[in-house]
Amino acid sequence: MINGFTLSCPMPPLDFDVITLGHGSGGALTNQLLDSGVFTLLDNEFLHSRHDGAILDLSGKTAFTTDSFVISPIFFPGGNIGDLAVNGTINDLAMCGAKPRYISLGFILEEGLPVEELWEIIYTIKKATENAGVQVVTGDTKVVEKGKGDRIFVNTTGIGTVHPGAEIDAGRVTEGDAVIVSGTIANHGIAIMSQREGLSFETEVQSDTRSLASIIMKLLDEFGPEIHLLRDPTRGGVATVLNEIARQAKVGIEINENNIPIVPQVHGACEMLGLEPLYVANEGIFVGFVDAAHATDVVELLHGLPGSEDACIIGRVVDQHAGQVVMQSAIGGRRIIQMLPGEQLPRIC
Amino acid sequence: MINGFTLSCPMPPLDFDVITLGHGSGGALTNQLLDSGVFTLLDNEFLHSRHDGAILDLSGKTAFTTDSFVISPIFFPGGNIGDLAVNGTINDLAMCGAKPRYISLGFILEEGLPVEELWEIIYTIKKATENAGVQVVTGDTKVVEKGKGDRIFVNTTGIGTVHPGAEIDAGRVTEGDAVIVSGTIANHGIAIMSQREGLSFETEVQSDTRSLASIIMKLLDEFGPEIHLLRDPTRGGVATVLNEIARQAKVGIEINENNIPIVPQVHGACEMLGLEPLYVANEGIFVGFVDAAHATDVVELLHGLPGSEDACIIGRVVDQHAGQVVMQSAIGGRRIIQMLPGEQLPRIC
Repeated sequence: MINGFTLSCPMPPLDFDVITLGHGSGGALTNQLLDSGVFTLLDNEFLHSRHDGAILDLSGKTAFTTDSFVISPIFFPGGNIGDLAVNGTINDLAMCGAKPRYISLGFILEEGLPVEELWEIIYTIKKATENAGVQVVTGDTKVVEKGKGDRIFVNTTGIGTVHPGAEIDAGRVTEGDAVIVSGTIANHGIAIMSQREGLSFETEVQSDTRSLASIIMKLLDEFGPEIHLLRDPTRGGVATVLNEIARQAKVGIEINENNIPIVPQVHGACEMLGLEPLYVANEGIFVGFVDAAHATDVVELLHGLPGSEDACIIGRVVDQHAGQVVMQSAIGGRRIIQMLPGEQLPRIC
Repeated sequence: MINGFTLSCPMPPLDFDVITLGHGSGGALTNQLLDSGVFTLLDNEFLHSRHDGAILDLSGKTAFTTDSFVISPIFFPGGNIGDLAVNGTINDLAMCGAKPRYISLGFILEEGLPVEELWEIIYTIKKATENAGVQVVTGDTKVVEKGKGDRIFVNTTGIGTVHPGAEIDAGRVTEGDAVIVSGTIANHGIAIMSQREGLSFETEVQSDTRSLASIIMKLLDEFGPEIHLLRDPTRGGVATVLNEIARQAKVGIEINENNIPIVPQVHGACEMLGLEPLYVANEGIFVGFVDAAHATDVVELLHGLPGSEDACIIGRVVDQHAGQVVMQSAIGGRRIIQMLPGEQLPRIC
């Protein structure tokens, strides 16, 4: 156990323990880092060519998305910045209705980062990409002076092939659509916050970081255009995503608090910390807007897939209060749910 | 003139002066930032949809490359981190023989960054993308606490369509190939270093940041497979790129110091600072390995294109000292040129 993590896989002996500015020079030390066991974890035909970029064979509608990850702490219950970065970009592709295929990987390392931490992160990246069937095909490593970064920032940019049945567009969200969430909410935010605040629970709350790609592909195989819109409620939580869609699609959204899936210790942590779980970040669920006639079948399919066993219909699209989200609360009242107004928890992803 | 730059284009009035953590929350403040005049500079049909990613129509061989930019200072003679980031990724695509088409843009902002600086950078990005005929189609903005970053880091990841005549591969570099550089060397590194060190010259040394894409496309139109390999000698300079190619292609390379183009004040600055210009970074030239029979014609074409007027044949590939670069010096001696051994100038790009 080193700085909050245990090496998942033994690291080969290296002649350097920490990252230095020279590892970002582009010269001999950069090559030493690339040649070291650290990067060979990810080796494949594309990276092996050591060119400035990868040459891919693509055709048809292609999704393209980018995300930088600055989470603190970089190791947390349920994952680390490595699988978070891979899954986050994979999920953004999936939300476009695309099967993720290739990702790029950009590291900004702070001078002094222990190489063991980098090793563990890259090992986790390897596992996450293998799990989701994507390849890291090109990358970049920069190093900044101590105090000018924070251990490690990761950018992943992804390319995916749009599913032939996908017709995902905010313009397709219409009155009557069911609003589905694919799993329990607020796990990621509470996992990070409890680690930062030193809270402990009977059962540890873990981040829900996971790839949603295979779930989404199954959904599109079965229901194709009945799936009107998909979004992953990361920063800003479910409430912010619903508000964005209400505004973009110029519709009203009603949700029912009783139907929102949340595990008891996450609910308890939110109460203790005074947080509305709808604003807390998620990294492994999606919000779907689905043709009402198929909503029950969609949820039934989701219940049979690993990672979406707790899917629920939480609300519907209505022809009132366009641009607003209204929640029927557990005790019977109705209130408007705004977008996350300020900053809840910096650097949650 | 604010912190080393003048606004190139007036900024609309905003109700915030500096970036705060809330601008990275994913909630209302993030939306405020996106809605503010700052990001509308880049608006196009892709960004307008505000989805997690862009949907592109692509077909055939596609180049994909990523780069993070952490340069300090962010404003420098001849450019800023914005055009550097656009041109850098465009040039990596061009080095793959690809016509750049789309880029993603990821910002990691430090809390407290003046919005005017962000505005100027985005305005420069807009100009650089227009100039090169590419579009920013997807993006991401994160904010880190003061002291956990350094003003702004930028990731650009690019997609381009490989030219039908391109057959660029280190494996095609063979004995007899001419080694060409497309312009004077060491300008970018010396521009940055002189700003950091407070050096001044009779004529200001400017960074050579520029897009090489249209030059490369013309070269491939005319000479196609006679162009064996292209590389842009950024971090680590010309010497490092030549060494990498000598190793990868398992060939020897000989260059002649007298033939290496360099402007007098850059040469003087290198002498004064004790630097070998071959290790100093460039952002607007390329090194090409070209079939010997066509080398003179290639150079002649380059002389007629804006941005490569100073192209020269600096050496050739030989059947001796495989894996090594040897320079015939100006005074007649011969010496081995190694890869940049340590760190010359941190955060040059």
